[in-house]
Amino acid sequence: MSINIEGFIKSKGFLASVDNYKDAGTVLAGIPFDATTSFRPGARWGPQAIRNVSEVLEEYSPYLKRDLAKVPFYDAGDLDLLPGRVEENLKLMEKAADVILKDNKKPIFLGGEHLVSYPLIRAVYRHYPDLLVLHFDAHADLREDYLGEKLSHATVMRLVAEAIGPGNIYQFGIRSGTWGEFAYGQEETNFFMDEILSPLEKLVPYLSNFPLYISLDIDVLDPAYAPGTGTPESGGCTPQEIFKVIQLLKDANVVAFDLVEVCPAYDQSDLTAVLAAKIVREAILAWG
Amino acid sequence: MSINIEGFIKSKGFLASVDNYKDAGTVLAGIPFDATTSFRPGARWGPQAIRNVSEVLEEYSPYLKRDLAKVPFYDAGDLDLLPGRVEENLKLMEKAADVILKDNKKPIFLGGEHLVSYPLIRAVYRHYPDLLVLHFDAHADLREDYLGEKLSHATVMRLVAEAIGPGNIYQFGIRSGTWGEFAYGQEETNFFMDEILSPLEKLVPYLSNFPLYISLDIDVLDPAYAPGTGTPESGGCTPQEIFKVIQLLKDANVVAFDLVEVCPAYDQSDLTAVLAAKIVREAILAWG
Amino acid sequence: MSINIEGFIKSKGFLASVDNYKDAGTVLAGIPFDATTSFRPGARWGPQAIRNVSEVLEEYSPYLKRDLAKVPFYDAGDLDLLPGRVEENLKLMEKAADVILKDNKKPIFLGGEHLVSYPLIRAVYRHYPDLLVLHFDAHADLREDYLGEKLSHATVMRLVAEAIGPGNIYQFGIRSGTWGEFAYGQEETNFFMDEILSPLEKLVPYLSNFPLYISLDIDVLDPAYAPGTGTPESGGCTPQEIFKVIQLLKDANVVAFDLVEVCPAYDQSDLTAVLAAKIVREAILAWG
Amino acid sequence: MSINIEGFIKSKGFLASVDNYKDAGTVLAGIPFDATTSFRPGARWGPQAIRNVSEVLEEYSPYLKRDLAKVPFYDAGDLDLLPGRVEENLKLMEKAADVILKDNKKPIFLGGEHLVSYPLIRAVYRHYPDLLVLHFDAHADLREDYLGEKLSHATVMRLVAEAIGPGNIYQFGIRSGTWGEFAYGQEETNFFMDEILSPLEKLVPYLSNFPLYISLDIDVLDPAYAPGTGTPESGGCTPQEIFKVIQLLKDANVVAFDLVEVCPAYDQSDLTAVLAAKIVREAILAWG
Amino acid sequence: MSINIEGFIKSKGFLASVDNYKDAGTVLAGIPFDATTSFRPGARWGPQAIRNVSEVLEEYSPYLKRDLAKVPFYDAGDLDLLPGRVEENLKLMEKAADVILKDNKKPIFLGGEHLVSYPLIRAVYRHYPDLLVLHFDAHADLREDYLGEKLSHATVMRLVAEAIGPGNIYQFGIRSGTWGEFAYGQEETNFFMDEILSPLEKLVPYLSNFPLYISLDIDVLDPAYAPGTGTPESGGCTPQEIFKVIQLLKDANVVAFDLVEVCPAYDQSDLTAVLAAKIVREAILAWG
Amino acid sequence: MSINIEGFIKSKGFLASVDNYKDAGTVLAGIPFDATTSFRPGARWGPQAIRNVSEVLEEYSPYLKRDLAKVPFYDAGDLDLLPGRVEENLKLMEKAADVILKDNKKPIFLGGEHLVSYPLIRAVYRHYPDLLVLHFDAHADLREDYLGEKLSHATVMRLVAEAIGPGNIYQFGIRSGTWGEFAYGQEETNFFMDEILSPLEKLVPYLSNFPLYISLDIDVLDPAYAPGTGTPESGGCTPQEIFKVIQLLKDANVVAFDLVEVCPAYDQSDLTAVLAAKIVREAILAWG
Repeated sequence: MSINIEGFIKSKGFLASVDNYKDAGTVLAGIPFDATTSFRPGARWGPQAIRNVSEVLEEYSPYLKRDLAKVPFYDAGDLDLLPGRVEENLKLMEKAADVILKDNKKPIFLGGEHLVSYPLIRAVYRHYPDLLVLHFDAHADLREDYLGEKLSHATVMRLVAEAIGPGNIYQFGIRSGTWGEFAYGQEETNFFMDEILSPLEKLVPYLSNFPLYISLDIDVLDPAYAPGTGTPESGGCTPQEIFKVIQLLKDANVVAFDLVEVCPAYDQSDLTAVLAAKIVREAILAWG
Repeated sequence: MSINIEGFIKSKGFLASVDNYKDAGTVLAGIPFDATTSFRPGARWGPQAIRNVSEVLEEYSPYLKRDLAKVPFYDAGDLDLLPGRVEENLKLMEKAADVILKDNKKPIFLGGEHLVSYPLIRAVYRHYPDLLVLHFDAHADLREDYLGEKLSHATVMRLVAEAIGPGNIYQFGIRSGTWGEFAYGQEETNFFMDEILSPLEKLVPYLSNFPLYISLDIDVLDPAYAPGTGTPESGGCTPQEIFKVIQLLKDANVVAFDLVEVCPAYDQSDLTAVLAAKIVREAILAWG
Repeated sequence: MSINIEGFIKSKGFLASVDNYKDAGTVLAGIPFDATTSFRPGARWGPQAIRNVSEVLEEYSPYLKRDLAKVPFYDAGDLDLLPGRVEENLKLMEKAADVILKDNKKPIFLGGEHLVSYPLIRAVYRHYPDLLVLHFDAHADLREDYLGEKLSHATVMRLVAEAIGPGNIYQFGIRSGTWGEFAYGQEETNFFMDEILSPLEKLVPYLSNFPLYISLDIDVLDPAYAPGTGTPESGGCTPQEIFKVIQLLKDANVVAFDLVEVCPAYDQSDLTAVLAAKIVREAILAWG
Repeated sequence: MSINIEGFIKSKGFLASVDNYKDAGTVLAGIPFDATTSFRPGARWGPQAIRNVSEVLEEYSPYLKRDLAKVPFYDAGDLDLLPGRVEENLKLMEKAADVILKDNKKPIFLGGEHLVSYPLIRAVYRHYPDLLVLHFDAHADLREDYLGEKLSHATVMRLVAEAIGPGNIYQFGIRSGTWGEFAYGQEETNFFMDEILSPLEKLVPYLSNFPLYISLDIDVLDPAYAPGTGTPESGGCTPQEIFKVIQLLKDANVVAFDLVEVCPAYDQSDLTAVLAAKIVREAILAWG
Repeated sequence: MSINIEGFIKSKGFLASVDNYKDAGTVLAGIPFDATTSFRPGARWGPQAIRNVSEVLEEYSPYLKRDLAKVPFYDAGDLDLLPGRVEENLKLMEKAADVILKDNKKPIFLGGEHLVSYPLIRAVYRHYPDLLVLHFDAHADLREDYLGEKLSHATVMRLVAEAIGPGNIYQFGIRSGTWGEFAYGQEETNFFMDEILSPLEKLVPYLSNFPLYISLDIDVLDPAYAPGTGTPESGGCTPQEIFKVIQLLKDANVVAFDLVEVCPAYDQSDLTAVLAAKIVREAILAWG
Repeated sequence: MSINIEGFIKSKGFLASVDNYKDAGTVLAGIPFDATTSFRPGARWGPQAIRNVSEVLEEYSPYLKRDLAKVPFYDAGDLDLLPGRVEENLKLMEKAADVILKDNKKPIFLGGEHLVSYPLIRAVYRHYPDLLVLHFDAHADLREDYLGEKLSHATVMRLVAEAIGPGNIYQFGIRSGTWGEFAYGQEETNFFMDEILSPLEKLVPYLSNFPLYISLDIDVLDPAYAPGTGTPESGGCTPQEIFKVIQLLKDANVVAFDLVEVCPAYDQSDLTAVLAAKIVREAILAWG
């Protein structure tokens, strides 16, 4: 018997998800939204693709030495959204995140384009006012507006900066942006161009004092590992580096996680979804 | 030397297009817009794909016995749009169509999703108040709203009906819609389910008395012929039927034409673009 | 709240499926099995692909003038099978069909390779001893064995013939087989090479006197319409012919239906799944 | 034990080919050449793709009621060519055809681009001075030169016309060409635009008096059926029409056959190769 | 003149293979078998894909400074198997390996799924009772059974362990398995999680004292390098590491080698086959 | 207003290209030529693919801290070539390069197959008699002839060696060739097998004294990063290494640059074009 959360459409459950919302400490929630993607749209199909391939994985992680059998999580399916209406949809996302948090569950979100992180972080921030955001991405996403538009996957971290303060954002692996974004990042946020592991290792002790929201844009990885994404940017990191990120933070207080910008139409081999599913498994095992 | 129309980004010209806007009686204009697509987005890449493959064609049509060498047309490139802003973009489209019409050129538009037809038809209607619209599509596109949204590729013909009167719309080949759309179509518009050539043949003498706008959604064809589209619907017509439509109407007063919903990401073989390019060539030769 | 049938893994529900098994008169059941495919394996992924694309369709059929809103059906998900064990899996299928029939539900099965029809027909036959089987396929599937193997997608109709008598089988559209299969078919079953509609039209009055099981191998359609299949065979029928088959039989006593051999890995455009989903919608509306 | 013809590289044999050249009355020969393709190159990979999928077929043809078991044929593999050297390669092809004919075998050639037909027809013409050529194609291929080049896949039938006289050429299904090509075809060759079966049916009695060379460009079929080709042209014929062509001519004196322009890189589903393989099987059964 | 081994179907020969079995010290043998693959089937097409692309390679290896011209090897083609019959096929494989070994040839096997290694290793083990097995894989393949099935690509190394003793197995690069498999591996076999080169470098002197069987599952490489495989697992090694493995072992007594799990349907770019072909060339040059 | 260079066909401009040839110090020129490719043809479509995806990039490079807004460059479009005529086309290329150089513009060429570098280097060499050529490639390209043919993508660096002296060529990253090519390279050119950055770092001070032509074959990268290429060779470098090459040489006197062998038909995800576009952006920013 499975009871679904209001506003969600039930899907095939991610590998080893439990049927009972009540018993679960962690909730997986798909946010099948893409509306502001500038280049290749289609990230709305990300959550479905990730679930569909998840059974290729084992439930046990040899990196974390933990097993999904010991971490009951519930897969809520995909949020039921309205085609073409950005602001109304952002409100639905924020509300959905709020419901999960109020039920004392830890949310793991599957995008969708990166703009979804804005309402999700807002909801989490209300529950955790000392929240820090860790942002892994090829793109700085720090524009004030994108061709006049404030709400965009290219402005999402600037919006977050305005909401929680730029000093509470840590950006890793960034290798693309305007001159202005790099200037803003280097002055205002905690900004690491191209680098991931070496700055993170130093920061772990400090970061462990705060509730953390981790937002991972799959394009932080090189397109060779993640071809199915909307704005591929050559020169990215490897899967091993991301698995290491999760290991470094496995004892941190990660209160929410999102993985965004998986766009399966551009990946005939489904590599991107397979990688994303493994990252999600590790995230559940580390923080669920 | 090529002079571009303001607001357009110049592209590789469609097969045999001339460099000089002034000399051209016909103008090809790409409208790379998709924002309300409910299923598979990406029709914004349609115009580029159609141009890129157009050189596979000969400039001469054995169906029409005419040659592009005798029909100078200008390819304006793609309208410069703003990601994610529906209403503002519809205004840009309407204005662009208006400019072309004021210059006494005949416009041929390449979508983009079907919603683009609404502002384009509005602009043409202002110039031709006795305009009739011929609509070839798998879908009725007659919803009042789509999940609450008035501006959608699923409502476009209802919007047109409200603008020019449903009795001035002729719909051919429709094989998908809600019960309500079929009821509305059968009562209000000139509505032909599944059928194309037999009703059209009878109507040609009457239609020839009016200025005509033809809107062709590529999904009127069976997905076998046009796999690269956002909402494929099995059971459609053949390319030969569409070429025959153009021949039947070759002496009609077609004042504008659009071809929409080519979504190349779902067509590794580029069949859809090759077919669309041939339809565009025929349209230029018939009505340019 | 959704209650699942034992032995099934719940999936995203097919378009408009209801959450409650009890209220449903019809049950959709995925049989994700391929083990004996001789050429291109992968039909196990058919049910998932068909469900995933089903939302491209409207719930209303203009062919049948019926709406899924009026035909409550339950999507049981996919039968939980054991990799590599043919006989054991066939027993699981037969048992699952039996459970659905005992609950007085009408089953619609999504394959999977064609061998799945054998246990399914056996189960239905036990409930309807005067059962006739209508078989739409490119291949006769009448071999006595395939390279020594009795249980194969190439022998399935011979197995059925042995179970229910060859005279109770009607085969339409067959265009591939050994000399021996054609000889057997022409002598023993009701066998129509290449033809579908003209023989069916004549048979409808007779067939209407019996409970019917319809087994549709997607490769009866030309590979242009259904490229995603294991053993494509050029020269097949069109989607319109299949939709017409369903209309011809819409008042017949169809007690079970299966659609098999959708193999999505060979169809980057998902045409096959889109077509299959439409056939399934029509089947539910006609016989559900 | 298999003995190969000099100059050929042995490949996996086409379905049911025999190992012994001596016993075979028919010889299959791949000509993996593409050098003058104007649009999408890659037809050099056609023969390999056709052989690789041939095992999807049965050895028995229900259309012709014949079986490959009764028609021993030898698959010589692919002619060993020199990258980038057009004239030298044409000589190799002519010589290879000559060897097969001198051994009193009937050749069936797998292209490669259409230019290969020129040397092959020259060789056959020397053996059969009253040869007629039947040409099935979307394109007239009657240019005098293509951008200054005499040897091209766009000039091949003009070259043949110069070699054997235009009146000895019969062209079927043509739907693309320059004005000049259509004028030349309609005046000089036996030219049937778009049409195939109706003119052929009338011609069969006359054609049966002569040795025939049949050259079939796969693009005579609609791209829906044959997406994997270099210059797809919408609006073509169906597989059934081609199978009917072979049945109509099954008692004619077809002394050589070529099937050209299969370009597998543009066909992820391998439909084109599957169709080509079936045409080849029918050709062997009809004329081998 | 080429003489084939009984039970094999001759294919296009791998790059530079010789025509004469007698002259060859090494034999390439395709094992086109997949029956127990749990996720994406199709590895049966691996050998054909690897041969088809092999000509992209040079015959000379700059890593090993050796040339295939100096290492005559024979390509036997693909073993002729029976669809759907696991145990009978395993026997055919074991027998085929035995024939090659009895002829004093060194076998190089191309899978096929990983289960094929079991009968192959059994045959080799009979000839070399002090055999050690080196296993490169993403997956431990050490399950006792897979959903009740003993014979599976997920149990293959456990079966081997039972046959030759777990202490004679060396496993490298493993990054996926159940808790139980990791426990067994760490206790019973020589097991290196994620690591390849550093443990191997230390072991080379010891391993050089024994006859070695190397079994390489292509999924030991990251899916970015080898997308065409049945159970892709992110986070793998690079091609350079595998080439280095071969160099480290080039003077070892490698008596047999297999490369398995290339599944070309999931790799539109054929990267996996190109990589596999290069590994095979290096293997022939190192150990042939 | 845009004025085009004679002999070029105007295309969609690469990201941020200016409309005015006069104002530009750098000229981008497409050379859509492939005629001698031995394995997978189609590099003629490289320039179009690279331009089409270029808008995924930002105009600012965080590696070089420069912005295209400050480096006005003109995109001339594609050179108008003649299908199938190698020598005539090479002359057109040499002439086009000469025109750009005489206008005192710095040329950046987009291939096309690697043979295009030969006429381009000849033209540049006439303007810079002390020219050194830096060659980044998987293949040595040093054959004297390829199956008898002097003009080939496999002989291009040997031709260059004969034109400018082998001692003036620096080859990096080479991992494929015949024994003879490696011997010639190691004796005559400055030849670095597999290595790129470590030898380059040492050479930079010396190289900075000379005008440099950089020729980059995209297959120097591993096929995981650049699957869309004609002769993929596993085991290559990463994008980061290439970006580093450009940074190392950013103050060198690079007088011309070409990027060749992008073949988009084999890359459904367009990774190769996205990577190539980024390399081109870096090249313009470093040397434009």
